[in-house]
Amino acid sequence: MTGGLLVPVDLEKWGIRKRTFWNRIWEDLEIGYLDRDLLPLLIELNLRPYTYTLSSCSGRITLVDSSRPWARRGTNVVFKKHAPITHEELLRVAKEPCTEALWLIVSGPIIHASTASLREAGELLRIARRAGFKHSGVLSMHKVKGVIVEMLTGIKAIHMVKKGEDFITPVSELSKVVAVANELLGDAKEALKRLVNEARRSRPERLDLFIVEDLRKKQYYHII
Amino acid sequence: MTGGLLVPVDLEKWGIRKRTFWNRIWEDLEIGYLDRDLLPLLIELNLRPYTYTLSSCSGRITLVDSSRPWARRGTNVVFKKHAPITHEELLRVAKEPCTEALWLIVSGPIIHASTASLREAGELLRIARRAGFKHSGVLSMHKVKGVIVEMLTGIKAIHMVKKGEDFITPVSELSKVVAVANELLGDAKEALKRLVNEARRSRPERLDLFIVEDLRKKQYYHII
Repeated sequence: MTGGLLVPVDLEKWGIRKRTFWNRIWEDLEIGYLDRDLLPLLIELNLRPYTYTLSSCSGRITLVDSSRPWARRGTNVVFKKHAPITHEELLRVAKEPCTEALWLIVSGPIIHASTASLREAGELLRIARRAGFKHSGVLSMHKVKGVIVEMLTGIKAIHMVKKGEDFITPVSELSKVVAVANELLGDAKEALKRLVNEARRSRPERLDLFIVEDLRKKQYYHII
Repeated sequence: MTGGLLVPVDLEKWGIRKRTFWNRIWEDLEIGYLDRDLLPLLIELNLRPYTYTLSSCSGRITLVDSSRPWARRGTNVVFKKHAPITHEELLRVAKEPCTEALWLIVSGPIIHASTASLREAGELLRIARRAGFKHSGVLSMHKVKGVIVEMLTGIKAIHMVKKGEDFITPVSELSKVVAVANELLGDAKEALKRLVNEARRSRPERLDLFIVEDLRKKQYYHII
């Protein structure tokens, strides 16, 4: 893995990063940038002394105009929502001109975390597997950034609505696509809840006291 | 990770497994069960002394009848091909009765390998990243099974053709869906070639002599 393997993580520098990423969660919450469905999981994982969370997603529906649905150039994501969509929302975008192809994408939750040891990474992977996040794995290891874990389900749909100006899915069928997409998004949110529950069941005896104290200050301690 | 971390791999038992899995590749080839596009990669990876390959896929198109496209109960995969499909193939399946929903799924390559050390796993992950397999990671570690690595791209499409008996994509539009699906499958096969090339460029100086000898016997040594 990058940075050479078996190099132990520098706990002091790692701990500074944990606080930085933790504070960012609350800044993002304040400016409305946080995917709020994630909050219970972010709190639960950060309570673990040897884990902090990185950019994550609770599950979402996006509309992308591109020749390849996996291409992400920022500008081609024309719609994004972490909650069910309405028929009108899809219709509004579908009626706009389309350059390449219009894809409706339902994505399951994707969680990134850094751990301070391989042992803790293994513990997260076990929790993830029990919650049905079967594509979870260790992505890389760094002395300072820690052991990077990705937790991922197989929940996904990538439906072609238009190819250029041709409706591959006629306007008359869009309401059925919306219904199915919202149903699959419901599965995504359920998977996230299972992950929170599994993490809670495997909560370590010793919690990260800085996080506990900070939650008390923020008056968020009741949700623990 | 499962089985306790940092437990060194039992090289003797691991080596026996490598030979078993290696022999299975050639049995599968003989009975027509092997995904043949994989062969150059399987040879390249098994030439590495500390790596062997597990069940993998070179990229494929499947048709699945299920309420959730990720559900796999064997019986609901109604069509599977590791090569481009024809309009007639899709039409034939689409005209059959559909119980839940008919999904056309294009999947990029997915490669599983076992390594005898974390260092070697890290080397595979670097090769995978360079080839654009950006969802690659270490899934688990076992004393005997080794360090399990998954190499995965973001290449995917999961298009709803029918919902029950309703054509969400009308028959008149199916040829466009076939054209796009085959184009995306082409991307999958290109990604696989990039992975073979990156693995070849990072081939270790010392090869697995059992594999080298076996390839000579099988008169496959020329493709190295």
